[in-house]
Amino acid sequence: MLMKNSLISDLKKNIPQENVLDSLEECYAYSQDASNLKNIKKNNIPDVVVFVENIEQVQKVVKLANKYKTPVICRGAGTNVVGACAVEHGGIILNFSKMNKIISISKENMTAVVEPGVVLGNLQREVEKIGLFYPPDPSNLAVSTIGGSIAQSSGGAKSFKYGTTKDYVIDLKVVMADGEILRTGSNTIKNATGYNLNTLFVGSEGTLGIVVEATLKLIPKPQSKKVIMAYFDTVKEAVSTVNSIIEHQIYPSTIDFMDKNAIQTVETFYPANLRIDKESALVIEIDGFDCSMKYQEDIIVNILNDCHASEIQISHNEEEYNRIWTARRSSMGACAKLKPNVTTDDLIVPREKLEALVLGIRGICEKYNLTVCMVGHVGDGSVHPQIPIDYNDENEYKRFKLAKAEIYSLTAKLGGILSGEHGIGIEKRDHISKVINSVALDYMRRIKATFDPNNILNPYKIF
Amino acid sequence: MLMKNSLISDLKKNIPQENVLDSLEECYAYSQDASNLKNIKKNNIPDVVVFVENIEQVQKVVKLANKYKTPVICRGAGTNVVGACAVEHGGIILNFSKMNKIISISKENMTAVVEPGVVLGNLQREVEKIGLFYPPDPSNLAVSTIGGSIAQSSGGAKSFKYGTTKDYVIDLKVVMADGEILRTGSNTIKNATGYNLNTLFVGSEGTLGIVVEATLKLIPKPQSKKVIMAYFDTVKEAVSTVNSIIEHQIYPSTIDFMDKNAIQTVETFYPANLRIDKESALVIEIDGFDCSMKYQEDIIVNILNDCHASEIQISHNEEEYNRIWTARRSSMGACAKLKPNVTTDDLIVPREKLEALVLGIRGICEKYNLTVCMVGHVGDGSVHPQIPIDYNDENEYKRFKLAKAEIYSLTAKLGGILSGEHGIGIEKRDHISKVINSVALDYMRRIKATFDPNNILNPYKIF
Repeated sequence: MLMKNSLISDLKKNIPQENVLDSLEECYAYSQDASNLKNIKKNNIPDVVVFVENIEQVQKVVKLANKYKTPVICRGAGTNVVGACAVEHGGIILNFSKMNKIISISKENMTAVVEPGVVLGNLQREVEKIGLFYPPDPSNLAVSTIGGSIAQSSGGAKSFKYGTTKDYVIDLKVVMADGEILRTGSNTIKNATGYNLNTLFVGSEGTLGIVVEATLKLIPKPQSKKVIMAYFDTVKEAVSTVNSIIEHQIYPSTIDFMDKNAIQTVETFYPANLRIDKESALVIEIDGFDCSMKYQEDIIVNILNDCHASEIQISHNEEEYNRIWTARRSSMGACAKLKPNVTTDDLIVPREKLEALVLGIRGICEKYNLTVCMVGHVGDGSVHPQIPIDYNDENEYKRFKLAKAEIYSLTAKLGGILSGEHGIGIEKRDHISKVINSVALDYMRRIKATFDPNNILNPYKIF
Repeated sequence: MLMKNSLISDLKKNIPQENVLDSLEECYAYSQDASNLKNIKKNNIPDVVVFVENIEQVQKVVKLANKYKTPVICRGAGTNVVGACAVEHGGIILNFSKMNKIISISKENMTAVVEPGVVLGNLQREVEKIGLFYPPDPSNLAVSTIGGSIAQSSGGAKSFKYGTTKDYVIDLKVVMADGEILRTGSNTIKNATGYNLNTLFVGSEGTLGIVVEATLKLIPKPQSKKVIMAYFDTVKEAVSTVNSIIEHQIYPSTIDFMDKNAIQTVETFYPANLRIDKESALVIEIDGFDCSMKYQEDIIVNILNDCHASEIQISHNEEEYNRIWTARRSSMGACAKLKPNVTTDDLIVPREKLEALVLGIRGICEKYNLTVCMVGHVGDGSVHPQIPIDYNDENEYKRFKLAKAEIYSLTAKLGGILSGEHGIGIEKRDHISKVINSVALDYMRRIKATFDPNNILNPYKIF
């Protein structure tokens, strides 16, 4: 307690006082993130919340964290769903929501330089104004920040064609555990000069250093886009359609999936004219030159017909485009209305194992009497099972944990991996050895120890 | 000498004898790579050359290297141009040319699993047979291997649109310095499960571990491609045209450059109907759906006319396509005919600094009375100045070294980096601190020490 008071007092000497929050009520508000994990043990309330406004302040906080050997947990919008910014051991919440400037956008270099607190959707809008495009698009892009997407290597619906955050980060300024500033790359789209530190930090969940500025690669914005929603009478038909599309050398920007539960739940709470009698649906986005849109649409409609799609909806204007996408993106929000709590997950397998994964997850949830709404970026082999539960129902929670463990084992058995775009955080760290070999885990731990010898940067996350 | 004999004797007990070469003549042949560096000091002949045939043999060699604390230097086709597989301290050359199997290609997963000795061009041909595409295309792809391209993070002409090797490696099997096997990723196109070890190994030039198997992401093969060669009366006009193309939201797969010296030298030795009276040329490749090709071509031709291109050649068939590309790719071979030795380099700057880089390199070479043929992937901001010299002319070599140092300083001053796709190796290690900040270099060295505590894996390269 004395140490905590001393830390807070030191912080207030270094950071404008209004940016240092230390009341219990304020701290409590920052103890969790969107993962809303149950059963975080130990000291799950931060000692203090600091809103930083510039790089120097971040350095000061880190130096004090070192002095007091206390954890530093970075936070943007707190939309993380694996507990990567949840608190377990007290410490300092470093809040980046005031470092939210787009520093520059260069059309000539096709790059943007941003502070970590920039909201992803804002960046996308700004770059699109000048004909450029930043593809990573997690469902929560209206609120989630660049810093968080770098920490978790966010993807989204367009990863199938355009990749994830790691494919767009070309340079980072990082405050290291000792307060020094490391620069990872350069303002160039290629770099083979020394080890690739960019992608070592992307996805490291704030455990290796604190990203305080990012240079992002942008690409030319496609002229047109269109979304096609196709319904199927079985899950199997929807999933096998993914392969037929790929075989025709079409490269949609998105091939997403919704199962019957997801379709019905969305339609119940956010009516969008979805066909609730169908077993599953694919949401396929095509993009490119205006002159290619009709061609792509025709091929895909032919494939869908050959693959027994029982109904096809095509966006003919922006309103229809937004309606379909809003429905797809609303699935977690809709699920949240079914029970007091909602959880999501992020499994990914080689595409040939997708059907086995989807049907396997459904079987496991049935076995444990859990509702599951499944959506996913099936073009990537990725599935997000969303399970609504009541944390206060101890029996249900127990079944939930057993189901999760079985889902992770199934994913491992299918040659998949425990996260494609959400990260590991607290939620899956006990399961990571199911998919990462022990030698790799050992080297990851050695990297952590090398970068953060006092274990102050988001400690105990991932491992 | 005793130790060397003992090492060779141990190797012959573990590896089929015909795969262990230890005569001076044989070893001498493996002391250099395509960089043909002058002035490698110390012990620049390997003690022994081992052709490995499987992963177990690689493990055995590494364990013996540890026992004898002797360097292990991996080698595919030896096309490296920075001395990354050249020998400085004796040791073992690990030759992967017999581990050259394409293990599998999956259309459904859009992945290929390969041994490191697979020739890049062979892989490309095989995957294209089934409508897939592996974009990285260094100029030497007819002979260079996947292992080398992973070690150096190779790019090529298509990086502008399609990225470099790092964007296509999703999983690696790596024999670590202690002989254990680490697996970096998974057979999935997204992965946010622990630290990204894939891209830590890509570009690490064999200094962190030995890649013995790679899983590569493939993408759908574009239906059509076409190349447009445009000539200009000034360098400035060619370079500024790059920005005009980008501003029109066209995304060519390639925007390459040749200066007057490169054009004339190629035309002298490999006549290809190039216009030798022009100051510079752009080589622009467009690709995509058949139905979009005419549209893209028309826009680009309009831009080229607006930007004062003084002549435009367009490939109307495969023969014309190949003629232009063979000319562009022949520049280093042609340069090699001007003097006994030829050198290339690989500088990259933010695109807005490209003109300053190209004109700056030309000025520096004039100042030191050196011929320079400049080609480059200008869409990426990347330039490959090729300087023919005579290593036996001590005065010329001295001027060459001074010019190089100035070129590196200029690149750094322009905010660029010393390699976009060749790596650092021996050639540029003394200059790396011009572009990588000392904190980053320090952490790179710590990673090296963590992964290779006995410093046996390609020691002293990069740093």
